[in-house]
Amino acid sequence: MKIAILGMGNIGGGVADVILGNKSAIASACGEEIEIKYVLDLREFPGHPLEDKIVHDISVIVSDPEVGLVAELMGGSHPAREFTLACLNAKKHVVSSNKEVVSLFGDEFTAAAAENGVHYLFEASVGGGIPLIRPITDCLSSEEIIGIDGIVNGTTNYILTKIEGGTDFDSALSEAQRLGYAERDPSADVDAADAQRKITILSALASGKLAPPELVRAETVRTVTPKALSLAAKCGGTVKLIAHASFEGGKADLFAAPSFVPFSSPLAHVSGVYNGVLLRCSLSGELMFYGSGAGKYPTSGSVMSDIIAAVSGKARRCRRFTRASEDDVLPFGEHVCRHFITAPKSSWEALGERVAPEVLVSDGDTVGAILPPCRHGDAVSLVGTDEQISVYRII
Amino acid sequence: MKIAILGMGNIGGGVADVILGNKSAIASACGEEIEIKYVLDLREFPGHPLEDKIVHDISVIVSDPEVGLVAELMGGSHPAREFTLACLNAKKHVVSSNKEVVSLFGDEFTAAAAENGVHYLFEASVGGGIPLIRPITDCLSSEEIIGIDGIVNGTTNYILTKIEGGTDFDSALSEAQRLGYAERDPSADVDAADAQRKITILSALASGKLAPPELVRAETVRTVTPKALSLAAKCGGTVKLIAHASFEGGKADLFAAPSFVPFSSPLAHVSGVYNGVLLRCSLSGELMFYGSGAGKYPTSGSVMSDIIAAVSGKARRCRRFTRASEDDVLPFGEHVCRHFITAPKSSWEALGERVAPEVLVSDGDTVGAILPPCRHGDAVSLVGTDEQISVYRII
Repeated sequence: MKIAILGMGNIGGGVADVILGNKSAIASACGEEIEIKYVLDLREFPGHPLEDKIVHDISVIVSDPEVGLVAELMGGSHPAREFTLACLNAKKHVVSSNKEVVSLFGDEFTAAAAENGVHYLFEASVGGGIPLIRPITDCLSSEEIIGIDGIVNGTTNYILTKIEGGTDFDSALSEAQRLGYAERDPSADVDAADAQRKITILSALASGKLAPPELVRAETVRTVTPKALSLAAKCGGTVKLIAHASFEGGKADLFAAPSFVPFSSPLAHVSGVYNGVLLRCSLSGELMFYGSGAGKYPTSGSVMSDIIAAVSGKARRCRRFTRASEDDVLPFGEHVCRHFITAPKSSWEALGERVAPEVLVSDGDTVGAILPPCRHGDAVSLVGTDEQISVYRII
Repeated sequence: MKIAILGMGNIGGGVADVILGNKSAIASACGEEIEIKYVLDLREFPGHPLEDKIVHDISVIVSDPEVGLVAELMGGSHPAREFTLACLNAKKHVVSSNKEVVSLFGDEFTAAAAENGVHYLFEASVGGGIPLIRPITDCLSSEEIIGIDGIVNGTTNYILTKIEGGTDFDSALSEAQRLGYAERDPSADVDAADAQRKITILSALASGKLAPPELVRAETVRTVTPKALSLAAKCGGTVKLIAHASFEGGKADLFAAPSFVPFSSPLAHVSGVYNGVLLRCSLSGELMFYGSGAGKYPTSGSVMSDIIAAVSGKARRCRRFTRASEDDVLPFGEHVCRHFITAPKSSWEALGERVAPEVLVSDGDTVGAILPPCRHGDAVSLVGTDEQISVYRII
């Protein structure tokens, strides 16, 4: 099959390398040879083996009936949305590593794919190199997914692992930037937009409903301190940026926020840039998928697995997403659970009379406490708006 | 499609429950309805909804052209081997949860399946409810699996978790038996035959070569003591029954033996009856799959995923296994790695002059040490045959 690659960045280059370097293994897995006919990019690539495949106009690809599959590896919402729809409507399979466009427009794409009898696949959009979306769609199709808790952003997990070791946020971020784990503008990672997009995608796979970003609470990790992590450890856990979805009473509880993770959870031991996604399933119980959440070759491996699935005819059709409305989602403050809070001793003394903590620990002038189950909104109003007080949900 | 179930034990009963209880969801996943036409069992099941489907003669199933798929959930080598071959040769798909027969005769079955144009699938044979074999065959088909380290036996992992907490082996085993995690005769679990079978299967998926049991070293966990685990903790790790396969220099290194696992490995945090399998892959790097390694419904979920894959036409053909010979496997003693040893102080004093440990700790009258890399055989001859000395490979 002849294919086109949209975007010759890090992932696009990795996929090209893998296809050019493993022709016979890929042909054997696909049942036919894969040939890159076009690469869409604004730049030229003089000297690259695909130099003469570069085009700058999507219509060359859309209008070529020889192209059976398009790998959208551009990132961003536009023109990725328009290019994806044009390719699906031209009856080409589309595979994508672009979590932004999948999380915003996955409903349009899954509908267009179904109407045109082609596949829209996006294994690489969540969890980088971890086989995650195909196990959900293929292996767990006879069971219900009741809940998802994921560490899906390697940058923040690296930063939180450093903070756990005693480094403050700013120094941890600088080190992550120096190592290439964080971008110069780190806000999509540290303010949790990236994790928010990924949990939107996983939640849609589980429930069929794609939630717009305003219905998925995202909280920054900038406020997490070494002190909070040492208090968490004394309470038997740690703080991770958790992307959460659960489905009870017909409503989805969705968020991406720093949360307390007990050491008894395998997620507590997902360190550094690694990702881990824990699923609670109706038959299989707890499952966790762990691995590299980013990186050129891990992500390229996931893109290749989609290409092979689509070309070999062994892909399952992704379920068609509908758009979630406000009625489908539980407001963040309504969820009832236990909370971990940290507060200066002085503030705690005023609070202490109103709460009966299950666990109370201290470290110098700061206390950490585990509160019994209550609505998140009530926990927050209880402690008030003091900036020095933090409230974390316990997963 | 009409199917037959061989063996109405724990797993057979679970699969029957799931099929009878989720008809429309399964039909939608398969693209057609699944009907249980026969259940082969020696017993009758008066009052069971499948009472009138019970047969006692495999030839009824083999000779019925309406039966498209057979689920072999009997366990044991014989007659499972003969029944499986008869069904494959009658051009019926076979799915199996029976690690014993897959590990011994998987080469015959994958050959018969290929010759007859049907599927032989065995997701439930390793890792119970964890999607593991399909992710390997489907998602990782564009990459090479370089190594596998698995905690694949929940019974021994439960026992070792208890020993880590200070309980001795005999008491931990009794408790596992009381809770139904261990059988009355626990030897297949605790002497590692079960883990040996499972690593044989995973190794064959990675390399195409199925090793006979005499080429896969199996070591008991009966000799692991609370003292050894407390010394391991002081050295920064724990001891787990690790099923290992790696492929370097054209030879497979294969074993199922208690091994030292550093706390930095996610496998160190797989506790109780849970299983975890860590893969090292050429593109994706380290991946771990974690979940319930046994149990009626988790295992039934894996059997269902094979049934759905085969019936929907979305299964990939399992690679054809050939039988490994002695030349394909590295002798256990030849492997070079670091070792963790425990010894009485008195024996250590004699040894200490001959080794230069990287780490040396003690607990009462016992020492624990980490030795620099050497051949396993050399490590064992170094410490001699004193029963009170234990030598563990470090993964």
